[in-house]
Amino acid sequence: MELEKISRLLHGGDYNPDQWLDRPDVLEDDIHLMKQAGVNVVTLGVFSWSSVEPKEGVFTFEWLDDIMNKLYKNGIYVILSTPSGARPPWLAKKYPEVMRTDENRVRQLYGCRENHCESSKIWREKVRIIDEKLAEHYAHHPALIMWHLSNEMYGRCYCEHCAENFRKWLRAKYGTIDELNRHYWSAFWSHRYTCFEEIEPPSKHGEMQLHALVIDYSRFYSDLMIDFISIEKNAVKKYNPEIPVTTNMFNITSGINYDKLAKTLDVISWDSYPRWHCQRDKTTEWKNAVEAAFTFDFVRSLHNKPFYVMESVPSVPSQFNICKLKRPKMHLLSAIQMIAFGSDSVQYFQWRKSNGAIEKFHGSVIDHNGSSDTRVFCDVCEVGAMLEKMSYIKGAASVSEAAVIWDWDNIRALQEQVGLRHDKSFFEKLPQRHYEAFLKNYVNTDIISSESDFSRYKVIAAPALYMFKPGTAEKIRQFVENGGHFVLTYYSGITNENDLCFSGTASNPVYAPYSLNDVFGIKVKEIDGLCDDEYNELEFNGRTYKALTCCELLDIDDSESLSKYMHDFYKGICAVSKKQYGRGCAYYLACDTENDFLHEFYKYILRNADASKIIGSEYVKDVMVKQRGESIFIMNFSTEERTINANGKIITLSGYDFAVLN
Amino acid sequence: MELEKISRLLHGGDYNPDQWLDRPDVLEDDIHLMKQAGVNVVTLGVFSWSSVEPKEGVFTFEWLDDIMNKLYKNGIYVILSTPSGARPPWLAKKYPEVMRTDENRVRQLYGCRENHCESSKIWREKVRIIDEKLAEHYAHHPALIMWHLSNEMYGRCYCEHCAENFRKWLRAKYGTIDELNRHYWSAFWSHRYTCFEEIEPPSKHGEMQLHALVIDYSRFYSDLMIDFISIEKNAVKKYNPEIPVTTNMFNITSGINYDKLAKTLDVISWDSYPRWHCQRDKTTEWKNAVEAAFTFDFVRSLHNKPFYVMESVPSVPSQFNICKLKRPKMHLLSAIQMIAFGSDSVQYFQWRKSNGAIEKFHGSVIDHNGSSDTRVFCDVCEVGAMLEKMSYIKGAASVSEAAVIWDWDNIRALQEQVGLRHDKSFFEKLPQRHYEAFLKNYVNTDIISSESDFSRYKVIAAPALYMFKPGTAEKIRQFVENGGHFVLTYYSGITNENDLCFSGTASNPVYAPYSLNDVFGIKVKEIDGLCDDEYNELEFNGRTYKALTCCELLDIDDSESLSKYMHDFYKGICAVSKKQYGRGCAYYLACDTENDFLHEFYKYILRNADASKIIGSEYVKDVMVKQRGESIFIMNFSTEERTINANGKIITLSGYDFAVLN
Amino acid sequence: MELEKISRLLHGGDYNPDQWLDRPDVLEDDIHLMKQAGVNVVTLGVFSWSSVEPKEGVFTFEWLDDIMNKLYKNGIYVILSTPSGARPPWLAKKYPEVMRTDENRVRQLYGCRENHCESSKIWREKVRIIDEKLAEHYAHHPALIMWHLSNEMYGRCYCEHCAENFRKWLRAKYGTIDELNRHYWSAFWSHRYTCFEEIEPPSKHGEMQLHALVIDYSRFYSDLMIDFISIEKNAVKKYNPEIPVTTNMFNITSGINYDKLAKTLDVISWDSYPRWHCQRDKTTEWKNAVEAAFTFDFVRSLHNKPFYVMESVPSVPSQFNICKLKRPKMHLLSAIQMIAFGSDSVQYFQWRKSNGAIEKFHGSVIDHNGSSDTRVFCDVCEVGAMLEKMSYIKGAASVSEAAVIWDWDNIRALQEQVGLRHDKSFFEKLPQRHYEAFLKNYVNTDIISSESDFSRYKVIAAPALYMFKPGTAEKIRQFVENGGHFVLTYYSGITNENDLCFSGTASNPVYAPYSLNDVFGIKVKEIDGLCDDEYNELEFNGRTYKALTCCELLDIDDSESLSKYMHDFYKGICAVSKKQYGRGCAYYLACDTENDFLHEFYKYILRNADASKIIGSEYVKDVMVKQRGESIFIMNFSTEERTINANGKIITLSGYDFAVLN
Repeated sequence: MELEKISRLLHGGDYNPDQWLDRPDVLEDDIHLMKQAGVNVVTLGVFSWSSVEPKEGVFTFEWLDDIMNKLYKNGIYVILSTPSGARPPWLAKKYPEVMRTDENRVRQLYGCRENHCESSKIWREKVRIIDEKLAEHYAHHPALIMWHLSNEMYGRCYCEHCAENFRKWLRAKYGTIDELNRHYWSAFWSHRYTCFEEIEPPSKHGEMQLHALVIDYSRFYSDLMIDFISIEKNAVKKYNPEIPVTTNMFNITSGINYDKLAKTLDVISWDSYPRWHCQRDKTTEWKNAVEAAFTFDFVRSLHNKPFYVMESVPSVPSQFNICKLKRPKMHLLSAIQMIAFGSDSVQYFQWRKSNGAIEKFHGSVIDHNGSSDTRVFCDVCEVGAMLEKMSYIKGAASVSEAAVIWDWDNIRALQEQVGLRHDKSFFEKLPQRHYEAFLKNYVNTDIISSESDFSRYKVIAAPALYMFKPGTAEKIRQFVENGGHFVLTYYSGITNENDLCFSGTASNPVYAPYSLNDVFGIKVKEIDGLCDDEYNELEFNGRTYKALTCCELLDIDDSESLSKYMHDFYKGICAVSKKQYGRGCAYYLACDTENDFLHEFYKYILRNADASKIIGSEYVKDVMVKQRGESIFIMNFSTEERTINANGKIITLSGYDFAVLN
Repeated sequence: MELEKISRLLHGGDYNPDQWLDRPDVLEDDIHLMKQAGVNVVTLGVFSWSSVEPKEGVFTFEWLDDIMNKLYKNGIYVILSTPSGARPPWLAKKYPEVMRTDENRVRQLYGCRENHCESSKIWREKVRIIDEKLAEHYAHHPALIMWHLSNEMYGRCYCEHCAENFRKWLRAKYGTIDELNRHYWSAFWSHRYTCFEEIEPPSKHGEMQLHALVIDYSRFYSDLMIDFISIEKNAVKKYNPEIPVTTNMFNITSGINYDKLAKTLDVISWDSYPRWHCQRDKTTEWKNAVEAAFTFDFVRSLHNKPFYVMESVPSVPSQFNICKLKRPKMHLLSAIQMIAFGSDSVQYFQWRKSNGAIEKFHGSVIDHNGSSDTRVFCDVCEVGAMLEKMSYIKGAASVSEAAVIWDWDNIRALQEQVGLRHDKSFFEKLPQRHYEAFLKNYVNTDIISSESDFSRYKVIAAPALYMFKPGTAEKIRQFVENGGHFVLTYYSGITNENDLCFSGTASNPVYAPYSLNDVFGIKVKEIDGLCDDEYNELEFNGRTYKALTCCELLDIDDSESLSKYMHDFYKGICAVSKKQYGRGCAYYLACDTENDFLHEFYKYILRNADASKIIGSEYVKDVMVKQRGESIFIMNFSTEERTINANGKIITLSGYDFAVLN
Repeated sequence: MELEKISRLLHGGDYNPDQWLDRPDVLEDDIHLMKQAGVNVVTLGVFSWSSVEPKEGVFTFEWLDDIMNKLYKNGIYVILSTPSGARPPWLAKKYPEVMRTDENRVRQLYGCRENHCESSKIWREKVRIIDEKLAEHYAHHPALIMWHLSNEMYGRCYCEHCAENFRKWLRAKYGTIDELNRHYWSAFWSHRYTCFEEIEPPSKHGEMQLHALVIDYSRFYSDLMIDFISIEKNAVKKYNPEIPVTTNMFNITSGINYDKLAKTLDVISWDSYPRWHCQRDKTTEWKNAVEAAFTFDFVRSLHNKPFYVMESVPSVPSQFNICKLKRPKMHLLSAIQMIAFGSDSVQYFQWRKSNGAIEKFHGSVIDHNGSSDTRVFCDVCEVGAMLEKMSYIKGAASVSEAAVIWDWDNIRALQEQVGLRHDKSFFEKLPQRHYEAFLKNYVNTDIISSESDFSRYKVIAAPALYMFKPGTAEKIRQFVENGGHFVLTYYSGITNENDLCFSGTASNPVYAPYSLNDVFGIKVKEIDGLCDDEYNELEFNGRTYKALTCCELLDIDDSESLSKYMHDFYKGICAVSKKQYGRGCAYYLACDTENDFLHEFYKYILRNADASKIIGSEYVKDVMVKQRGESIFIMNFSTEERTINANGKIITLSGYDFAVLN
C-alpha cells in the first residue's frame, strides 16, 4: 500500500477548491502557501457531489483532474473523499426518499448533511455510481493515497424502509417472535408481539419502554451504516484494491459501534476538537488534554496501531458557544500530543475558510484575509517543521499493560436504564475518569471493549460494566485465573446482552456481579443513590475520600475489605474489596468516589500487578507522559513551569512546553 | 360485600405471574414467600390483556385459574384488574384509532400504556368484551374480593372522535352557540363562533386563549373517562353486582375530577409514592410526610371513609432521578402513616421485579436475586406482622372538625390564568400549605371541594378560591351565619364557573370576593405581585412574619384588622381581617405568607372556633399526630429522638419511631 | 390632515365596546368616565371582524355607528382599526389556507391572532373587502382622525404559497440561479441549486445552514407583510386619502424591517410595555427607562418627527411572569417620558378589562369592578390633566447631533452567525448599551439604520456593524472626511449584504473593517472570545476598565492608540484607536467593555466633536434628560431625591419626580 510507504508523518487537511473554481488566483495561492507550511497531504472531495455530478448522470472531472495533477506536481498527496456526506438539491428534489425520516416520523426537507436514509435503495445506488465513477477515474492517480468514505456518519432514520429492514434484522437475530418476546420481556405492559410486522422502530410517540427494542434499533442502525460503508468500500476498491479506505470517526457515542466499524476499515481516522482554554481554570489544560488522550487511545486501540487525525482546528472551531483563540504554543503542544498518542498525521479542517454558510467562521489555516502573515499560519508552519523532523516515529506502536473497558453496547444500555440515577452523562464519562487515574500513574493504557482480547494486559478496569454479554463473565474469570488484575465496580453484571436482568430464586439466589461472586468474593445486596450534595466517606492508605453518586451494600464472602463506609446506616460495610483468585487478583469498587481516590487505588493495583511505568516519577500536576515506540513524550499542560524526573533525567518545561526523549 | 367481611387489614400488592408462566419454580417461590411475609391479598391482571386474549377473540384463562386457585388455597385474596391499562400490539395494529391523538394532532404509534382514545367505539367495545369475559369467568371465584378497573388513568386524546364528542357535550351544556359565546367571552380577538362545528379541542397550534374552552375540554375529558369507567363497571357487575369496584387514583391533578370519579366507585384506592430521603435536609422527613398525609386525607374525604393504598414501594421507585434506599425503620413508619390516615391496606407495586423493560428497577418485595434474605423482605415481614396485630382499626373512620378546600375546577382555572404570577405550581401547592398548618395544630382535617357539605365542620379554609361556582358564595355565607369559621384568602371570588370575571359598573361596583363583601367586611381593590426575592411584613400575636408572592390592597369596611402591612406604599393597610357574621366568623387573608404565620393564624382560629385537638400539645418539630376511631397515632419523622405530651402521657420516640394510643 | 390640526396631545386608548353590546349601562359609563379622565381619543375596531361581518358577506355597522356618533358628540376622536389582526371562526373554517403554516410545515388550527398567511389570496381579498366596506362607511365620519391597519404584525408563514412567492422574490433579486449560488456560497455542503424550484423556505428539519437563504427569507417575509399593509392602506385611502394610516409597531426584532415599513405609513405608532419595578434593584427604574427611551428614539427617528404611543398600560400588563402594581407617581413619570421622547399621545391598552379570555387580567383604565374610585383611575385622570396643560409641545421635534446605528439586516445576520459567541442576545442588546452612554452624557440621540442620512450628525456610533451593505463603507468614509466623528467597534465590516465574508489573497489581503483600514488606521488580525467569567483590562483617562466578551487583536497602522490591553498574550496591543481622517475623526473600539467605559469614552468623543449637551451637568445617577423643541425634560427614575444643575438652575426632584424647563 502506497500509504505505508510514505516515510513522513502527514500534515495537511480538508481542502475545498470547488468553492473557488472561479478564482484561479486563490487556487494558485493555495499551492504556494501549502508548500510554505509544510503541507504534504490534502483531503479533497468532501461534499463535492454538486461539482462532480452537477446534473443527474453528468459527471465533470476536469476541475478535479487539474487540482490533483497540480498537487501531485507539488509533492502533495491526496486523500480523496466520496461525496456521500451531503447530496445536491436536485437529488433530493427528484428522490425525496433519500432524506431521513426523524423519530417523530416526519421526513426531512432538503438541507444540512449526514441526514440520508441508509436504507433507501435509490440512495445506495446513486452513491455506488458516483463512487465507482470517481474510482474508475482516480484509483490509479499517483497522488491518491487513501479513500475517505463519506464523512462523520451519525444519527438514524425511522422511515418505513428502515422499519422493514429492522424487522428483517430482528428475524435474523431471534428467529421466532416468541424468542423475541422472551428477550424483550414483552409481557410487561401487555406488549407481547404476535408477529414481526407489529414491531415499529422506537419513538417518543410510540414505544420507548422496551429497552431491548430501543437498544436493538441502535444496533440495527449501526449495522446498517456499516453495511452502507461496505458498499462504498466495494465501489472504490473495484478499480484498485490496494488503496486503503477510512472514514472519519468523531464521537464515540455517535450511534455507530466503532469497534464493529473498525473491522470494515483499512485505516482508522479521527476528528479531534478539544475545547482548549474553555474551562474555568485558565492555568491548566489538563482536563481537555485527558479528554483528547482518551479518544486517541480509544481509536488507537481499535486496530492496535497508529491512526490518523483527519480533522483538527488550527485556530478556533465555530461550533463552540464561546470561540477562544488558541494561546501561543498550544497549537504545537496539541500537535505533539496527537503524535505521542499514536497519530501518524496532523490534519486540519480546514485549509481555507469558506466565505459563506454556517461554517464560515470555523478555524482554518488560511483566514478570509488570505494572508500568510498571521499567527495561525506561523503556528501551522512550526508544526510542519516539527513533523518533518519526527519522521522516525511514523508507524511506531504503543504497548500498554493496562486497559479500560468502554463498551458500546454497555453504554447504550446505561443510557436507557431508568433507575439509580437518570442522568445519563454520569455513566458516559465514567470510563474516562478511570482512564485518567491510569494516566496519572504514568502507564500506557488501551481503551477496549468487553469483546476485546484481555490476555495482553496486566490490569483491566471495567467501570460499571452493567451488561455482561455471553462470555464476558467467563473472560474475566479466565483473565484473573491466569494472573490478571481486574477491577470491577458498582452496577456491573446486572443484565445480559438484551438488557434482561439476571435473576434467581429463593433456593438459588443470583447476585451481581452475575456469576462472578466467587471470583470477587462478594455479593451485591443493595444500591443506594446519593443526591448531588450528599456523600459518604471511606479511608484508603491513611487518607479519607468521599464516596459519591452511588454506594452498593455488599455481602463480603472470602475477600479482603480494603476500605469501609464511614457513615450512614451502612457504616462499616465494605466499600472496596480484593480477592486473590487463581494466579491473579479481583478488585471490587462498590461506590463512586472522588477522582483522587481512583489515582491512589490504581497506584496500589499497578504495583500489585507489577505493571511497568513509563517513568518512575509520581504524578506532577498537569504533566502528561506517553510512550510510543522508544520515544517518551512529556507534555506540560499548565501555563506554569513544571519539573519532572524522567527516569533519572530532570526535565524542566516552561508553560505549554514538551520534551521528547528517545 | 365480601370485602367488608374481611376482618384483617390487607397486605400485599401487584402480582404479575403472567411474566413468569414459563418458570413454575418462581411461581412456587411466590406463594411460599407471600405467606412468610404475611401477605393476604394480591392484585392480579393489571396489563394482562396479552395473556388473557393473545389473539383477537381467543381467550385463555387456564393460567389465571391456576394462580387464583392456588392463592385461594393459601389464604390469599385476589383483587382482579381489568386489562384496559394497556393493549396488545395486535389490537393497535388492526384498529389504529384506539391509540390517542396528541394535542399536536398526531396519532400515537403503538407503545406505552394509558394512552388510548376513550371516545373510540372499537376500544370501548373491545374493553367491554374482555371485561365481561373475565367477569363471567371469575365473578364468583371465592378468592375475588374486588375489581380493579383499568390503571392510573390520566391524559387526554384530541382526535376527531373526541372533537365530535366534545361538541355534543358543549351542546348539552350551553344549548345554543350564542350562550356559549357569552360564557366564553368570544368577542375577544374576534372568536365569536357561528356554530358548534367551528369548535375544535384546544391546541398549542390552535386555540388556547379562550380559557373557558380550555377548561371545558378538561371537564369534558374527565367526564369521558368517568363514562368509560362506567362501561367497565357495568361489564364486571353484570355477573355479580356484589363485588365492589375501584380504580387506583394516583395524582390529584391527573386530569380526572376525582370528586366526580369517586361517585362511580364503590371503593377508593390510592397509589402512594413519597420521595423519602430525597430532600436537602436529611434529618427530617416532615415535608414528605405532610405531602403523603395531604393525599391520604384527600382520598379519605372522597367517601368520608377508609380507603385502600393500592400501590406503594417497599424499597425505592425507579422513576425518581436519584433512587435512594429506604432507611431502616422508614418502611414501617410509612406503613403506619397509611393506616393512621385511613387506609385499610398496605399494598405494594410490586411483588417481584420484572426482568426487563422500563420498570425493571422499580422497587419490589422480591428483588432480581429472588431471595428472602434481604433487608426489604424483612421490612415487609415486619409490616405484615404489625398489620396482623392492628385488625381492630379496620373500617374505623376519622372525624374532622376542620377542612381545607381543594377544588378541581378551581385548580384547573388557576393553572390557565395569565396574570399575577404565571408559575402554576404556586397555586397547586397552596391548599397543602394551609393543610400543614392544621396538621401542626394537631387537629384532624378533611380535604373537600367547594361542592362538598360544609355543615359538619367548625373551621374551613379556602385558599385562593378563585372560582366561585353557582352557590359557592351562598354556602360560605350560610356556613358563617350558622356559626362556622371560614378563612378565605387573596385571589378568591374572582370568576364564575366558566372563568368569566365578576364585574360591575360605576354605580354598582363589584369587588372580590364576589358577593361576600358584607360577610368579610372587606373589598379587594388591587393585587400586587411580588418577585421571588421580595417580601413585605406583617405582625401577628407579637411576632413579625414575611408577606410573600402577592399582596392584596383591601378597603376595610366593618371588619377588624388583625394585621397590617409594614412596608411599601401600602404600609398600614389591612393584611388580615376578621368579622363576626351571624353566629360565626369570617377571616380574610390578603397576602401569601411564610408557613409559620399560617401555623399561628390557624391556632388562633381553631381556639376561637372551639375546635377539638387530638392532643393538647403544641407542635413538636417533626412529630405528626392523627386520630382514627379511638386510636391516636403519634409519628416521629425526624431521625432524632422526640418527646411529646399526649394528653398527659409523656411519649418519647426515637428517630422514625411511632406510638399508637388506644 | 385632520390629525395635525388637533391642537391637543392625545389621551385615550383601545376601546372594545363590541364586547359589551348587551350592556348599554356599561357603554353609558364608558363615555362618562372617559370625559372624567380627560380622554380625547379611542381606538375602535381592533379585532372587531366578528362584529362587523358576523357571517360571510353580511356587514353590520349599526352598533359602530352608534358608538362613533356618541363619541363624537362627547368630543372624543376615533382611530379606527381594520380588523385584520384576527379572523372569525367561520372564515378559517371555510378557507383553512388563511391560517399560517409553521416552520415545521404544520398548518395552524383556528385560534389566536396575527397568525394568517400573508400570501393567501383569499385572505388578502377578504381583508380588502372588509377594509373597503369600513372605509366606504366611515372615511368621512367627523370623529375619524386615523386608520390603524391590522395590529402588532409579526411572525412568518411557511406554506407552499409563501414558498412560491419566495421563489419569485429570489428570481427578482438574483436573476439567475448561478448568481444566487454565488451569493449563497452554496458549493458548501454540496448545496448548489440547479433551479429556483429546488429552493424551500428555511426549516429546522430542512435547510438552516445557508445563512444567506435564512436571512433572505426574513427579508422576503418583511416585504410581504409591508406589501400586505399596502393593500390595507389602499383599501382605506380609496374613500378618503386625507385620513392618515398607521400600524402599531411593538418589537424592533419582530420580523418586520421597521425602516422599510415606515415608508408605507403616514404616522408611526408604538406599543410601549416597560417592565417597571421588575428588576432586582428596587430603588431605581433607570434600566427600564433606558430601554423605553431607546425604543422611543428608535421610532421617533423613523420619520424624524413625533410619533404616537398607541398602547401602554395604566396599571400592570398580564403577560409578565410577575405582575407588579405601578408604584405611586410612576404612571405620571412614565407618561411624561413618552412626551419627552417625542410622543404626541399617551394611549392605553386597554380602556376596560375584558371579562374573559387570555387578557382578562391585562391592566386597564377601568377594572372589572367598574368603578372610578381606584388608584389607577386617579393616575389616569392626573395624566389627562397634565397632557391638557402641555398642548404647546404637540408636533415639536427633537434635534440630535448624535446617532447610534441599529440596522435590521445587520441584526438579522448577527442572530444567525455561528462563531465568536452563539448567544444572540449579546448583539441584539449592544446598540442600546452605546445609546445609554450617550443618554448619560445628556445629549439628544437618534437611532438610525446604516442606510439613513449620516450628514446631520456630529457623532455616529456603529457597534458591531458586522454587515457592510453596498455603499456603507463609502458613507462612513465620507462622513469622517466631512468632519464627522465615527465610532466603529469589533465585529464590523465582515460580511456583505448577503452575509458573504469579504476575503482577500496573499498578495492582496483583506482585513476587517472592510475597505476602511485606511480610515481607521487599523487592521483586525484575530478575535478572541471571552467566557462569561473572564475579562481583560484596559486603562482610559486614568481609570481601569474591564474588557469583556470579545477582544480583537489589531495591527495598528497610522492611528493613535488610546488604550491597550493589560493582560494575556495580547497585553500591550491596542484596544482603542483614534485617527484623524479628512476633517473628522475615526475611532475603533476593539473589545466589548463594561458600560462605565462607554460613558467615559463617549464623553471624550462628544467633547472632541464639539457636540451640544442638553445641560452641562455630569450624569446624576438615575436622572434622565431629554430636549424636545425648546423644552428640557428632567426625570428622576430613582425612588430617592436627586439634585441636578440644569444649566445654572438647581433642580431638586423627589423620588419619581420630574421637571419641564421651557
